[in-house]
Amino acid sequence: MPTTPKDIRAAIEEGAIRGQTSGLAPGFVQANLVMLPMADAFDFLLFCQRNEKPCPVIDVCEPGSYSPSWAAPGADLRTQVPKYRVHRRGELCEERDDIRELFSDDMVSFLLGCSFTFESALLARGVPVRHIELGRNVPMYVSDRECRPAGIFSGPMVVSMRPMPAELVDTAARVTAPFRKAHGAPIHAGDPAALGIRDLMRVDFGDPPELRAGEVPVFWACGVTPQMALRRAKPELVITHAPGHMFITDLRDEELAEAPHPGGQS
Amino acid sequence: MPTTPKDIRAAIEEGAIRGQTSGLAPGFVQANLVMLPMADAFDFLLFCQRNEKPCPVIDVCEPGSYSPSWAAPGADLRTQVPKYRVHRRGELCEERDDIRELFSDDMVSFLLGCSFTFESALLARGVPVRHIELGRNVPMYVSDRECRPAGIFSGPMVVSMRPMPAELVDTAARVTAPFRKAHGAPIHAGDPAALGIRDLMRVDFGDPPELRAGEVPVFWACGVTPQMALRRAKPELVITHAPGHMFITDLRDEELAEAPHPGGQS
Repeated sequence: MPTTPKDIRAAIEEGAIRGQTSGLAPGFVQANLVMLPMADAFDFLLFCQRNEKPCPVIDVCEPGSYSPSWAAPGADLRTQVPKYRVHRRGELCEERDDIRELFSDDMVSFLLGCSFTFESALLARGVPVRHIELGRNVPMYVSDRECRPAGIFSGPMVVSMRPMPAELVDTAARVTAPFRKAHGAPIHAGDPAALGIRDLMRVDFGDPPELRAGEVPVFWACGVTPQMALRRAKPELVITHAPGHMFITDLRDEELAEAPHPGGQS
Repeated sequence: MPTTPKDIRAAIEEGAIRGQTSGLAPGFVQANLVMLPMADAFDFLLFCQRNEKPCPVIDVCEPGSYSPSWAAPGADLRTQVPKYRVHRRGELCEERDDIRELFSDDMVSFLLGCSFTFESALLARGVPVRHIELGRNVPMYVSDRECRPAGIFSGPMVVSMRPMPAELVDTAARVTAPFRKAHGAPIHAGDPAALGIRDLMRVDFGDPPELRAGEVPVFWACGVTPQMALRRAKPELVITHAPGHMFITDLRDEELAEAPHPGGQS
């Protein structure tokens, strides 16, 4: 079983790995993939710039390039994701394991940060992550906060929720804040109504949560936000990873975190 | 004398204020302006995304819009900067105080963060800023660090330098780090050779520094970086503010800073 990102990507390309990527290449950043024709790429980049918490940009390729020069130089984004989804005018059309024949000089590829990165950091710092313990999907909700629109892209911010004992909330915020390129610090902790969420058990995506006595719901901006904006905007063509089938970068988790004082003497 | 950003911008539009903006609307963010035709705007936005410390994006208007919807809704970027510079194919062609006739539906306007913002924060927290005390320009140097290129844009990172007693370096880093949209924390403190700078007295831009006994040179990424990249890329047309003649936004300095723990309970 390969363990380096490069070897895993090669195994994916050869078809030896086809499933979800959770747990592969521990310690390395996994990313959401969005590919768009150039005509819509400026609007989407602007949407990400304006809504950094739900849409954190890790890397963007030049138009026509399929190698992310920072996140995974030399990789091939057309073949090294285990499963792709092809959307046309907002509708999911097909799933594929290779999108070479859909790719053109006109396509722009975005890698967006994902919560795997900060969840690893939480676990490493002793903050339990309930849905992982339970082997479920994280509960997600459409909040009443609107994203700042950009061109054809708009929509509500989707949030994910992780319950935890009140005394761990500060730690969770401190641990995740430096991971700005993976949704960063929570956007809210406490009363769900502050985000327009009436009933935590009625999730919009994922599985319902399990809250225990004395626990506080903690909300992070969620990567489903740009997916909703893409669906609503209905661009001619969008290619994404299939849920859970992420692109594995060469970046170590800690490279995505920012030191609290990047200055420092030397 | 008007004091609110809106009134100052109106006075600029009417020609009642024509000079440098330093000291106007204290407490409000001033920004660098870059306007480009859409053909080059994606590359430039990508260059900024890849080089956030020297090119921190505060706001970007939709193509053809001249009102920054976050930084100054309703403002007019075509008339409310006291002096503009028009560059064609990399050459400075003229200075103007109104660029309405050059603006078109195709133009994209960028507002980039500037060091005024973090210098105010330094002063407020008791970190003296030498060049301000001396009434000089900040010393700037072309470093040996290359920016990550994006399309037609590339070039070295330019840095500004502020000397300070060694015991204030940590404070300076801590105070400026949250101002990510205004160059953030220093990129280096100490030996200039680490940035390829041989002689601090030989500045590339601005005025030579005055270092006193026991002082450490502290370096920040500088907004001259995107200007050099623009000059080198030679786009058909670029409109910028003239040096020191900034755009005054409605944002308060503290709005540009990020709370260290944006989570927090409520």
